Amino acid sequence: MRGRLASGMEKVETLLYAEDIEGAKAQTAMLADAQMLSRTDASAIMRGLEDIRSEIEAGAFHYRHELQDIHANIAQRLSEKVGEPAQRLQAAHSRNERLATDLRLWAKKQVARIDEQLKLYQQALCKKALRHAGAVMPGLVADSQPITFGHYLMAFVDMAARDRARFQDALNRLDESPVGALAPSRLDRRQAAQLLGFARVMQNSLDAATARDFVAEVLSASAICAMHLSRFAEELSFFALPQIGFLSPDEDNSFFQLYAKTARISGVLSGFFSALRSPAFGPPHSEDDTQKLFDAVSTVSMAIELMTCFVADLAPDAKEMRKAAEARMNGGDEAVGYFLRSLKLSMRQAQALSARLSNKAQARGLPLRSLPLEEMREEHSGITEEIYTILKASACVRSRTQEGGPAPKNVKVQARRWLKNLTAAS
Amino acid sequence: MRGRLASGMEKVETLLYAEDIEGAKAQTAMLADAQMLSRTDASAIMRGLEDIRSEIEAGAFHYRHELQDIHANIAQRLSEKVGEPAQRLQAAHSRNERLATDLRLWAKKQVARIDEQLKLYQQALCKKALRHAGAVMPGLVADSQPITFGHYLMAFVDMAARDRARFQDALNRLDESPVGALAPSRLDRRQAAQLLGFARVMQNSLDAATARDFVAEVLSASAICAMHLSRFAEELSFFALPQIGFLSPDEDNSFFQLYAKTARISGVLSGFFSALRSPAFGPPHSEDDTQKLFDAVSTVSMAIELMTCFVADLAPDAKEMRKAAEARMNGGDEAVGYFLRSLKLSMRQAQALSARLSNKAQARGLPLRSLPLEEMREEHSGITEEIYTILKASACVRSRTQEGGPAPKNVKVQARRWLKNLTAAS
Amino acid sequence: MRGRLASGMEKVETLLYAEDIEGAKAQTAMLADAQMLSRTDASAIMRGLEDIRSEIEAGAFHYRHELQDIHANIAQRLSEKVGEPAQRLQAAHSRNERLATDLRLWAKKQVARIDEQLKLYQQALCKKALRHAGAVMPGLVADSQPITFGHYLMAFVDMAARDRARFQDALNRLDESPVGALAPSRLDRRQAAQLLGFARVMQNSLDAATARDFVAEVLSASAICAMHLSRFAEELSFFALPQIGFLSPDEDNSFFQLYAKTARISGVLSGFFSALRSPAFGPPHSEDDTQKLFDAVSTVSMAIELMTCFVADLAPDAKEMRKAAEARMNGGDEAVGYFLRSLKLSMRQAQALSARLSNKAQARGLPLRSLPLEEMREEHSGITEEIYTILKASACVRSRTQEGGPAPKNVKVQARRWLKNLTAAS
Amino acid sequence: MRGRLASGMEKVETLLYAEDIEGAKAQTAMLADAQMLSRTDASAIMRGLEDIRSEIEAGAFHYRHELQDIHANIAQRLSEKVGEPAQRLQAAHSRNERLATDLRLWAKKQVARIDEQLKLYQQALCKKALRHAGAVMPGLVADSQPITFGHYLMAFVDMAARDRARFQDALNRLDESPVGALAPSRLDRRQAAQLLGFARVMQNSLDAATARDFVAEVLSASAICAMHLSRFAEELSFFALPQIGFLSPDEDNSFFQLYAKTARISGVLSGFFSALRSPAFGPPHSEDDTQKLFDAVSTVSMAIELMTCFVADLAPDAKEMRKAAEARMNGGDEAVGYFLRSLKLSMRQAQALSARLSNKAQARGLPLRSLPLEEMREEHSGITEEIYTILKASACVRSRTQEGGPAPKNVKVQARRWLKNLTAAS
Repeated sequence: MRGRLASGMEKVETLLYAEDIEGAKAQTAMLADAQMLSRTDASAIMRGLEDIRSEIEAGAFHYRHELQDIHANIAQRLSEKVGEPAQRLQAAHSRNERLATDLRLWAKKQVARIDEQLKLYQQALCKKALRHAGAVMPGLVADSQPITFGHYLMAFVDMAARDRARFQDALNRLDESPVGALAPSRLDRRQAAQLLGFARVMQNSLDAATARDFVAEVLSASAICAMHLSRFAEELSFFALPQIGFLSPDEDNSFFQLYAKTARISGVLSGFFSALRSPAFGPPHSEDDTQKLFDAVSTVSMAIELMTCFVADLAPDAKEMRKAAEARMNGGDEAVGYFLRSLKLSMRQAQALSARLSNKAQARGLPLRSLPLEEMREEHSGITEEIYTILKASACVRSRTQEGGPAPKNVKVQARRWLKNLTAAS
Repeated sequence: MRGRLASGMEKVETLLYAEDIEGAKAQTAMLADAQMLSRTDASAIMRGLEDIRSEIEAGAFHYRHELQDIHANIAQRLSEKVGEPAQRLQAAHSRNERLATDLRLWAKKQVARIDEQLKLYQQALCKKALRHAGAVMPGLVADSQPITFGHYLMAFVDMAARDRARFQDALNRLDESPVGALAPSRLDRRQAAQLLGFARVMQNSLDAATARDFVAEVLSASAICAMHLSRFAEELSFFALPQIGFLSPDEDNSFFQLYAKTARISGVLSGFFSALRSPAFGPPHSEDDTQKLFDAVSTVSMAIELMTCFVADLAPDAKEMRKAAEARMNGGDEAVGYFLRSLKLSMRQAQALSARLSNKAQARGLPLRSLPLEEMREEHSGITEEIYTILKASACVRSRTQEGGPAPKNVKVQARRWLKNLTAAS
Repeated sequence: MRGRLASGMEKVETLLYAEDIEGAKAQTAMLADAQMLSRTDASAIMRGLEDIRSEIEAGAFHYRHELQDIHANIAQRLSEKVGEPAQRLQAAHSRNERLATDLRLWAKKQVARIDEQLKLYQQALCKKALRHAGAVMPGLVADSQPITFGHYLMAFVDMAARDRARFQDALNRLDESPVGALAPSRLDRRQAAQLLGFARVMQNSLDAATARDFVAEVLSASAICAMHLSRFAEELSFFALPQIGFLSPDEDNSFFQLYAKTARISGVLSGFFSALRSPAFGPPHSEDDTQKLFDAVSTVSMAIELMTCFVADLAPDAKEMRKAAEARMNGGDEAVGYFLRSLKLSMRQAQALSARLSNKAQARGLPLRSLPLEEMREEHSGITEEIYTILKASACVRSRTQEGGPAPKNVKVQARRWLKNLTAAS
Repeated sequence: MRGRLASGMEKVETLLYAEDIEGAKAQTAMLADAQMLSRTDASAIMRGLEDIRSEIEAGAFHYRHELQDIHANIAQRLSEKVGEPAQRLQAAHSRNERLATDLRLWAKKQVARIDEQLKLYQQALCKKALRHAGAVMPGLVADSQPITFGHYLMAFVDMAARDRARFQDALNRLDESPVGALAPSRLDRRQAAQLLGFARVMQNSLDAATARDFVAEVLSASAICAMHLSRFAEELSFFALPQIGFLSPDEDNSFFQLYAKTARISGVLSGFFSALRSPAFGPPHSEDDTQKLFDAVSTVSMAIELMTCFVADLAPDAKEMRKAAEARMNGGDEAVGYFLRSLKLSMRQAQALSARLSNKAQARGLPLRSLPLEEMREEHSGITEEIYTILKASACVRSRTQEGGPAPKNVKVQARRWLKNLTAAS
């Protein structure tokens, strides 16, 4: 697992090569259409660009750091290959615009990929939730009743749904084209945007060349998603402690590694905001932004993938969970609720009755749910067998069918609905 | 202990009082409808809640830190005032749900307020841009042509538009009700949501009680918005330097203060992600979250308000800006573009001709735009008076009418369209 | 404008008043000695300064935000009270130098106070460690043997020792005087430094007026100290979980609050580094630095104080801890060590023998330490009663007397030595 | 330059190999001395370790991620090569201790290297300061007088001196040995520390295995040092703006890249504090710490090296700097000082006289320093030629010989003293 998390850090410099070549090809086509490049020159450029792509993908491209970025490197190599027409291509656009375009195209692909991964993660959660829809476990917040492992997992499906919505909002917002806003040549900006697959054209040349909020927004969405994964990893890690025993202790270390990795993302986010406070009017985006985006996006992507595998493998110990759930239920609150509802007592009366029963049970060294019915009835003759339904964790859980409640029935309905929608969407 | 930790932030603690009272009233109404409270008791509770509101607003409420939060304080005070029915109200809901509900209601109001402030900020920018639509200034990115001060300001209108969209997305996502997911009582959750003005009902009790991504999302949107304001403040601060002279140096210090303040927000964001990594299953939200949200939201809100005032007062020195714009244009690139378009030269020929003209001008100690036409024509007879159009900053700017370009005409069209839409929306 | 930005942090603004008055008095004395102020004027100024101090301490001082800082406010008030001689005092120094001086004087006091608090914290730890020197608990790192609660507490004494050393190093480094480096008047800078209690004189006027690394260093030392307290709080919080039971669950919430508070400090640190990246040559230190330093220093100071109280109240459940320690010891590794040492077996032989014994015990449903000696000897006749010494947690702990080991004897020696030194130092 | 900043990121995983082998060799030697390993076995292990070192350095070592860290990889490989004695070596120590030891040994080397680089940086600054000791430039803080470029550079020598002291304090604090605190075998811990070059032995086994404050302290020292470099880069970048012209604009981009890089470090610091808030009792240090330390230390180290080169190449435009210095001096304050000192006027009289002279000069469209002497004497007959000394930037600077003042004489004395000490120390 470690290897998968740490790999792939080398090639940041050439990361945007595909987008840069894509952009250059679209622009060449447009210049040819506008008869600003002859068909022969355009063909030569197209072939040159494809050659460069092959060189990069074969590891045969010599990246020159003194040229500062992948765009300048490809432009230089194209010049070597094709000569003067390459310079004409370059003169027709602004370097800052092209860098912004490359990064937006790349970000679009990454965000779409994360969305797809989150969908698979949701599917894994739903399947596992279906399987453990009825597995009782302690409620995890201070004042809560028992829940089920299925309900627990479905909470992460809802969190992931919001994470996906955040990524999609970011994607829609960044899906606009800087191409041609600054450049001296009179390209049809809408056609250029369409060729590159952008939804809209940016409306201000200065904004087109310098906007970086899309980087910050993708980083933030990644950090929030990582926060959810990190919480999940921490809780699973807790469940796997020998003292808790809900999960096998063997899994603890994996969860822990995942937890540590996700911390990296908020550090990247903080470094980004710090670096943005740059001297006025510096170069609007540098390799550093690409590096940060790559760091965050690849970390969160690996974390989702790992967590999806972990979820598929989860094998909770139903017996241990039920034991803990029952141990944490003293039953007093449940009894009060029951008295209010069934015996129509006032709150004061119900609480007093519950207290008397609890004392009686405690005096006999029993949990409330083990106190015999006749002894209960000594305190109030309206009590029936039904009270035991309330006092057992599994029954209590079954009764909580309100919208959003943890009843096994709810879990099944939700998980099946999600699975259907997730399948339909692909 | 709480008191000692929290000292000196007194006002934050009671921040959510209005939301808490609103929530309590809605619930009381529902319990009365469901005949779980008598009309008399419900009325007593309603009166008690209004009394408490008055006490708080008059500064007469004694906040007890040992009760940990505003919700518990109000509940306790209500008990003192109303007695047993207050306890019945409390038994009908979960404390964690109520705290989450209060914070969501409060966040909705804050985000809506920031959106409104950003609208006013956009209006101020558009008005000032209209006024300086034709004021030439140097392009601010490395390879750009001259722009206008109006175009410069309109870039911030577009940034603010994305900021507003981010806040609105956050608002839509957090606009869902936790009420009744955890609670033992069988409220109609949809009715409760409607009474409190929520758009939807949360679908998972655990998520309802513990979700905090909405806090992170509002913090992120605030940090990104602050990043834009901070960039603007820094650039204005630069323009006000005596060596630059675009703005009066008197304004420098104000911009600087604004710049420093906005840094606070990314620190809050980073502290938030750090605090979230809390021990497994701790209380799901504490006063600390409220404090952080309040810090970020009030800082960004003040910063927008201040910047709106600054914008309204901006009085750029058009003469200094034009001088700088012309000084930074050497004209060589513009001439190449002109030769390509008008003389149909190849790139190579155009660059060679431009170089010969530049050398000639330099030999005479002149900028290219001051070289007489006849001397230009010695190099190429096709050159006409039109070249001077290209070589003057103001003319150059006027010619850049492509979509997103800085031409005064574009600035006017955009600013007027925005002003119309912004007015229509209110 | 300043007022609007700074609202709601009223007390921070006057934070440095004592230092500013102290500085003004020292300078007045020096100007009088140099006969640049008459004795009469100097007396008037001294009285005026003391009046202002009284006004501030009585809450009767009207702070004017438009003057930007406490120094300017005191200077203005002094002018109102004393007239022209006050202006002569002001002309003799630089405002930036004075602000830097005030902040350094204030930081020195705060750091000295934290050091004193950490000493009390160490004393509380040592006393508690002495009391529980022999209370066995599970080792807390993956591959460790049982330890004692005393040894556990002494680890935090060592961490606090390094924290104190960091604060002291920071204090020594910042203990130098900016006074008089920039100012036009020819003060004896060494005399000024001595009057104010500084150890040295700064050697460069630009550095004197702008250095802020001392703020960053105190923030860092605070963040690292908070990290230790936070870890301690988290671990205690874990010990107090009902499933663990080493501490009473009542204490859990307090620990948790402390844990959440300490996160604030690293957020402050991150915001500080971000704000430092300010526009070139902005005002060298603002109220914001004071605010951040105050935030961090007061948070860490409260956290130390609280933790000192918590430590004094710790009442671990020795029985539960011992049970857990024994349950986590399977004894296999201990047996291997014993066979290597006592039976002089090779590693391979020792491991094989240990495995055979473990299997035998497991077959009988016993932990290794309950397997009767005769049955052990069936596997190797050299085994003696001594093996049980090794296999009991308490005995195991007693045997680990190496330097740094957890043996009760070590704990006692260390705790007593520390208590003696800590007392001697006060 | 870019390449140098970005290179070297691949091999983090094997980063600590040299330290791990060093540690293993020391332990082998000790076990052999204690006759717990035969001389033959010890020799085999020593040879095996050297073979592994060769494999790693030749790039022929197969790193297995599933083993999690370099220590486990080397241990595994040694087992393959040497067999059973390798296991005996491993049984004699704790994995956590070994990892902590490796990281401390590595950190010691890195910090020592940074200290050495900072020394070279100080030397470059002093040499350049000597050369431009008398080059007048505007004072950079709001209320300051002119300074010299030499004085400006010497400020960074003092900052670097404090940075070095911080690194040295960190080094002294982390220079203690965890070896043998946890391990079951009874090594002489002091001998082990000495063999590995540690100054002291850690006094608590739990602290030895889990302390990470040394990582935080080195990160903090790096972040503060980076803050100084970043400020310097930003100011130089400002000096290189065409509108300022103190430095050639060609250098601007390099400074900017350096500025952006240094932001990375505070992000790393913030991520570190976040990751430390790990689930209770997780593995005490992971590859992630190493990665973060490496990130920060290598970034700051490259930044120092680059800045040292930049400093050596600085060629300020003395004429432009002097022009700016004189333009910013209005002379009024200097005149007041002169009147106080030379004419023994009261503050009130001196200010009034200065105002009259300024008005007179302004009425004639002259700066104060160009007003003829006779016209000055019309206002006060005591004024002599000496006043022009005060009113010229160069003369003003020459007169500021107080301790810490910018006089060329001071710069020379300081720079020579530093150069002598820096040479003596190597």
